Amino acid sequence: MRRTFEIEKTCPRTGARAGFITTAHGVVPTPAFMPVGSQASVKALTPDDVRDVGTEILLSNAYHLYLRPGVDVVEQMGGLHRFMGWDGPILTDSGGYQIFSLASLRRVDDEGVVFRSHIDGSEHFLTPEGAVQLQQRLGADIIMVLDECPPYTKEKMSVRRAMERTLRWAEKCVKAHRGRDQQLFGIVQGGVFSDLRRDSVAFLTALGFPGYAIGGLSLGETKSETLAMVEETVAFLPTDKPRYLMGVGSPEDLVENVDRGVDLFDSALPTRTARNGALFAASGRINIHNAGYKGLDQPIDAGCDCYTCQRFSAAYLNHLFKSKELLAYRLATIHNLRFVMRLMERMRQAIVQGGFGEFRREFLENYRTTDEGVRLAQKQRWLERSVGVHDEGDGPEDPGVVA
Amino acid sequence: MRRTFEIEKTCPRTGARAGFITTAHGVVPTPAFMPVGSQASVKALTPDDVRDVGTEILLSNAYHLYLRPGVDVVEQMGGLHRFMGWDGPILTDSGGYQIFSLASLRRVDDEGVVFRSHIDGSEHFLTPEGAVQLQQRLGADIIMVLDECPPYTKEKMSVRRAMERTLRWAEKCVKAHRGRDQQLFGIVQGGVFSDLRRDSVAFLTALGFPGYAIGGLSLGETKSETLAMVEETVAFLPTDKPRYLMGVGSPEDLVENVDRGVDLFDSALPTRTARNGALFAASGRINIHNAGYKGLDQPIDAGCDCYTCQRFSAAYLNHLFKSKELLAYRLATIHNLRFVMRLMERMRQAIVQGGFGEFRREFLENYRTTDEGVRLAQKQRWLERSVGVHDEGDGPEDPGVVA
Repeated sequence: MRRTFEIEKTCPRTGARAGFITTAHGVVPTPAFMPVGSQASVKALTPDDVRDVGTEILLSNAYHLYLRPGVDVVEQMGGLHRFMGWDGPILTDSGGYQIFSLASLRRVDDEGVVFRSHIDGSEHFLTPEGAVQLQQRLGADIIMVLDECPPYTKEKMSVRRAMERTLRWAEKCVKAHRGRDQQLFGIVQGGVFSDLRRDSVAFLTALGFPGYAIGGLSLGETKSETLAMVEETVAFLPTDKPRYLMGVGSPEDLVENVDRGVDLFDSALPTRTARNGALFAASGRINIHNAGYKGLDQPIDAGCDCYTCQRFSAAYLNHLFKSKELLAYRLATIHNLRFVMRLMERMRQAIVQGGFGEFRREFLENYRTTDEGVRLAQKQRWLERSVGVHDEGDGPEDPGVVA
Repeated sequence: MRRTFEIEKTCPRTGARAGFITTAHGVVPTPAFMPVGSQASVKALTPDDVRDVGTEILLSNAYHLYLRPGVDVVEQMGGLHRFMGWDGPILTDSGGYQIFSLASLRRVDDEGVVFRSHIDGSEHFLTPEGAVQLQQRLGADIIMVLDECPPYTKEKMSVRRAMERTLRWAEKCVKAHRGRDQQLFGIVQGGVFSDLRRDSVAFLTALGFPGYAIGGLSLGETKSETLAMVEETVAFLPTDKPRYLMGVGSPEDLVENVDRGVDLFDSALPTRTARNGALFAASGRINIHNAGYKGLDQPIDAGCDCYTCQRFSAAYLNHLFKSKELLAYRLATIHNLRFVMRLMERMRQAIVQGGFGEFRREFLENYRTTDEGVRLAQKQRWLERSVGVHDEGDGPEDPGVVA
């Protein structure tokens, strides 16, 4: 198999590294953040907007596309790239996470999983082999094994069972995988248990994947638990393969996890919070609804080069959000994504130039993060609402925008 | 006063004419259609999108902007053009229509009108002089007199009273009008009564305006009543001033009224119906939700040069609407507006080249219009729902998008 990952530079003092993932639709400089387009659309943006904010690769979701419009339709339209008008690299998630959070679960065993659609309640059976075939038909550049992703728990036995099933499924996925244009990534499970993570990595690396995802985190555990678990898992993983931390995240989390050697991220947080009016600035998240922005004749973030900041005042955005104008969600999404992309670019540059540690320190000193108690409460509320709601990442905290 | 309207060509066989309105922010070729941006935003579009569909002038609304964000804010941001990032011509409506449809009315007399905000119930007093000052502070290129716009009725006495009050208000507006950069247009009222329309025109033309609007139509009367009244009113109006038909319209209505000598139009219909998934095509309106579009690998309208048709299949749009993706509303709005702008361009070209009559006949032969009974029922429902709903033109028929 041809080499699909190259490391350009590794930070001598931290775990951070700068590299390139080569895919059938282009080369992705890492560390990279993938905007989420679960339903073949990064909410409120055209593919041109997605490109303009600096996106190198985006994520879509096999579970969502399987249910609607159906794989037949996407295939008939020439595959996911052509269907959604995005000719850059795409990664599809297998649907494991969605089935175990969104859908109503009927039965799970080594054969696969029976679930009911969150859209119309119809019953479906998905096997690990089926998940791979599905993603192959969608035509993504990077596809994921089917995994069993249990909610955050301290009960080690249930986490172990799910982790072991994920490994047996991974083996089946590898056997079912055909074609050279799509890379199949494995997913490390094991909750917050270091030994389970180690066992998971050992099995997966024996199978041999071109990339490894760290799944089952950022699900309600504390931030220090997440970071500790990433650190330990990364230590088990091979250095010459990309590491993908699923479902992260916020600007501060991206910095902390790049610091620990993660190369690839996805999260609906930047786009979801944007639609709620929570916008990223150098000093931290701001709430554009606040009265202080009503008369502010300045961009949201003075240092930002995005379309929104170049063209519109905070006062105008405040007005659009107050008036629930659709344009609000688009301009805010453009800004938050550009903020994250610029952050990735700056981290990469710092790694290459040898100043990542300093960059990290400075960024975190300036960026006011959400209080940990508030963050966990929000997360919990979001996870609870996710069950049965139509889009895991992009719906629940939304103020009626995509009811 | 400098000349602000020039006629390039008048159709020898119909009433249609091609001209130019000169404003402080540019020259507008007529006949022209103004997209509606009531709250300083054409729903779902950036100013660049608005420009890209071919918009030469847009409409915003003094009533909405007065209530939110407030004239102080807009003025402080350098005026409406700068606030919303649109440097082309803008016309603002005075708020008359909104006060008499959206707001809860408290008292109306020759001094002005006391109403309650549809947003927070707060009480406000607006005089004709105040309406002019408000629009001057917003900085639009064309501003409108305050008018009393009663609902559609056959009771002539009440229509006459409102018409006569509108004339007394118009006189006060003229006296209050300052500055050369803003043209103040008069508004002809008089419902469906020819003699009232005639009296209204006589009084207004004696005052002398650089342009005349025909108000109080398209409010529930039949289409033939509307057309007859436009025809008669146009006959009373001077030929050397632009004629603006407020609140129209649909593609077929635009053609019919250009045919009768109207130069300027505004309506939320193209944008509102777009967000409901009703898209314009050469053969008439289509409903993109229909199952037939699910697998259609073709643009909505084969002859359309808009961004949406150039880039996306009907199948993708069907998917976006079914999935309630925000991008749906934007792509549909771009398409419908571009359809209307192209229609205006084609009509203008036909007038200049001397083939308008033929163009009109061909267009109407191909374009399948909505059944008149269905149309009136929809209109009635919309007008009823408008009362108390936040946006006269862009809310009521919306499927929860801008709740």
